Amino acid sequence: MSDTNPLHLDLVGVAEAIAGRQVSSVEVTRACLEAADRLQSPLNLYIRIDGDEALAAAAQADAAIARGDRLGPLHGVPLAHKDMYYRAGRVVTCGSQIRRNWVADTTATALDRLSAAGALNLGTLNMAEFAMGGTGHNYHFGHCRNPWNVDHVPGGSSSGSGAGVAARLFYGALGSDTGGSIRLPAAFCGVTGIKPTQTRVSRYGAMPLSFSMDNVGPLARSARDCARLLGIIAGADPRDPTASTLPVPDYEAGIGSGVAGLTIAVPTSHYLDNLHADVLAAYEAATQLFERMGARLVEVAVPDHDQMLAAIHAVIAVEAAAIHGPWLRKRPGEYSQAVRSRIEPGLYYPATRYLEALNLRSTILAAFNAAVFDKADAMLTPVLATPVPTLAATDAHSNPDGSRAAAAVARNTRPINYLGLPALAFPGGFSSNGLPIGLQLVGRAFDEATLLRMGHAYQQETRWHERLPPLAAGTE
Amino acid sequence: MSDTNPLHLDLVGVAEAIAGRQVSSVEVTRACLEAADRLQSPLNLYIRIDGDEALAAAAQADAAIARGDRLGPLHGVPLAHKDMYYRAGRVVTCGSQIRRNWVADTTATALDRLSAAGALNLGTLNMAEFAMGGTGHNYHFGHCRNPWNVDHVPGGSSSGSGAGVAARLFYGALGSDTGGSIRLPAAFCGVTGIKPTQTRVSRYGAMPLSFSMDNVGPLARSARDCARLLGIIAGADPRDPTASTLPVPDYEAGIGSGVAGLTIAVPTSHYLDNLHADVLAAYEAATQLFERMGARLVEVAVPDHDQMLAAIHAVIAVEAAAIHGPWLRKRPGEYSQAVRSRIEPGLYYPATRYLEALNLRSTILAAFNAAVFDKADAMLTPVLATPVPTLAATDAHSNPDGSRAAAAVARNTRPINYLGLPALAFPGGFSSNGLPIGLQLVGRAFDEATLLRMGHAYQQETRWHERLPPLAAGTE
Repeated sequence: MSDTNPLHLDLVGVAEAIAGRQVSSVEVTRACLEAADRLQSPLNLYIRIDGDEALAAAAQADAAIARGDRLGPLHGVPLAHKDMYYRAGRVVTCGSQIRRNWVADTTATALDRLSAAGALNLGTLNMAEFAMGGTGHNYHFGHCRNPWNVDHVPGGSSSGSGAGVAARLFYGALGSDTGGSIRLPAAFCGVTGIKPTQTRVSRYGAMPLSFSMDNVGPLARSARDCARLLGIIAGADPRDPTASTLPVPDYEAGIGSGVAGLTIAVPTSHYLDNLHADVLAAYEAATQLFERMGARLVEVAVPDHDQMLAAIHAVIAVEAAAIHGPWLRKRPGEYSQAVRSRIEPGLYYPATRYLEALNLRSTILAAFNAAVFDKADAMLTPVLATPVPTLAATDAHSNPDGSRAAAAVARNTRPINYLGLPALAFPGGFSSNGLPIGLQLVGRAFDEATLLRMGHAYQQETRWHERLPPLAAGTE
Repeated sequence: MSDTNPLHLDLVGVAEAIAGRQVSSVEVTRACLEAADRLQSPLNLYIRIDGDEALAAAAQADAAIARGDRLGPLHGVPLAHKDMYYRAGRVVTCGSQIRRNWVADTTATALDRLSAAGALNLGTLNMAEFAMGGTGHNYHFGHCRNPWNVDHVPGGSSSGSGAGVAARLFYGALGSDTGGSIRLPAAFCGVTGIKPTQTRVSRYGAMPLSFSMDNVGPLARSARDCARLLGIIAGADPRDPTASTLPVPDYEAGIGSGVAGLTIAVPTSHYLDNLHADVLAAYEAATQLFERMGARLVEVAVPDHDQMLAAIHAVIAVEAAAIHGPWLRKRPGEYSQAVRSRIEPGLYYPATRYLEALNLRSTILAAFNAAVFDKADAMLTPVLATPVPTLAATDAHSNPDGSRAAAAVARNTRPINYLGLPALAFPGGFSSNGLPIGLQLVGRAFDEATLLRMGHAYQQETRWHERLPPLAAGTE
């Protein structure tokens, strides 16, 4: 292999290096597994490491290359996924006590598609219990930690996905996003994640939390890496009739086109309210950079944020309670208090109010589209108004203010789930406490391509996404 | 014109006669309007007659023919529709006091498509208040009557559509079917009606009752007439994102292929329980006839009926209450007691139970599909287990047993809405009280073509659909 540490290559880079035999899949996989062993104790980001299987698959991948077999775009590349994607015959915990030993009897479409593209699987990743939580606390498997500072939260609910990509333990990971669960860990850990348009990616075999708001999507080191992963997992699926049948564009093909001629919306309210000075500075630097790169900025007045937050709160509470109802009745003690107290109220909502909350969606979406997308190609916001908080400050069990503080992190992400729109989260600098600041680009329905293109252009200029956290593999 | 009374032609026949100039659209329209005047008092099936406009449109249609313009498949053919299809600038009462003077600001897609095919519009038809009711009672506009016997109900909620087609006052009509509202009036009045597969026809501009169960569909004199109407109104619609994008087959093209080689399922339970002897005799005659025509019969054990009835009851109650909530709070006195008592309980259902009722749908549908469609191409059932009841016996206001008796009429139709499957209702003989007996063919999702083909084959043999009720136009 070359003298470059393969863990410092990005996903597209390592796929090319493996295909070009500059490095073997076994070498890459072994490096990932050795680093995982070293970093598991401080970061607690794996729930299970499937090392032997991964190495066996890597050896097969190398053998295929040696035979000259036709390769998929992720041939031999090690990934790992949030432990809520079903894999037939394997335990899938969903980060919960209730499913600690539950064995899936089917495999998620997203996993099948990644396997078909040649990807390997290193294991299953820590996550918020049943994907309920934006911080990364888990009272059953232990809290996941932020590789930039282990006293701070990695973001959730796809906490292991964000922390592991940031720590360079694998090249990409599936997360899921019902209220911010891809974008929050991407932002908190300084990596890139995309929540696709509602129904863009099949949800077959993904643990449901709220079928009106759940999304499957990737976290990786860059917009370009996300483009490759999204292109593989997106598209119609006979096993998920809710999945869109719209054709999937080649996201990688147009990613280098720059932002000249594009317009970026700057919201005049809600998303920029009460920003910490560090976050405001990063946001303003980003708008200025986009302008220097040729984009036009336009101020937009967006529809009421709080109405959307109330509506999505009702929808998620009800849908989660419908799914969890039988367990809530029979096994209430196996939920953490934090999660149970969030789901249980959903049992008591009247159905008519639930439908009101859902039906309001099209009205607000129309207003949002008119306010933003009549004028602009995407809207730029910070992901979080403050620097990344600590585990202690957002601990719902030990801190009387923890629940409120934990819920507040999703203020800028949840409305986008309600609207069903795609959103890219990506690193936009650092706050004075040394943790990443995340930015969010929100796009038109099914226009992930423009978000990825904008994110890529920004990353070519800033290189924030290449910064390594102190706990990254290979920095020791 | 020929010496045939044009009111006795069917829809396909009159369209050909107009196109071939054997009769003018003005003659046909005038005959329809004269008959409407004569029969309005005994039958009360129109809410509003738009005679002058219809005659003006007929004159334009005739002028177009004289010019040799290219004609649509309903050029110059007078129709009339249930008064719940919005037409911009016109009052659409929805059979209610609350909307007695409400003016629509948009036009339903189904109406637009019929107009584009050349159809004329004679006026708006009586219906159950807000489409809530299977009999034809209306406490605001007066009860609609059955042309076979005015003491009997015409079926609902599309009561004017069924009664008017039977009375030969127009050639076809839109109904809507949430729990049987097309099939019941078709069966009770001796005409043909099809409830298409859920989402087969756009619902844009149709008054919503229950968005999970509502269907738009036609009533006409024969399966062939329904085939023409359905082919015009079915298909994707950008204004209704729930409308299916599956291609629409040419329903008329295959309608004459007969039933040889097809298999018809005979349910061993539920749909044939407690049949009146007259209904049983008609049902058995139909199965024997299908067999003689070359179809194979197979007995099937269908999933539990009562569970589906409970589930659809909850879904309709909740969705109707969500839609009617603001009026129920502000204007409760403007509902009939019968309708208010059916909608209001929906305000008090928990959302989780509503979702349970909806989510059970795919499980039961899979069981139903396996039980029926693994073995057969369609299932044959009676629409109603008894002869058509009287207005008095099913009057929810004056008869202590009326509500229960009225609700019972939908026992064989509502489960099909829950399953989302297409179903054709057509006349299958007469009971000893002289009223029609209706049969129902239930098909695979999106296989309306097979139902229409079976219905057409049956009608070619039986000619029940050509029998005229005593109050039909032209029998005087």
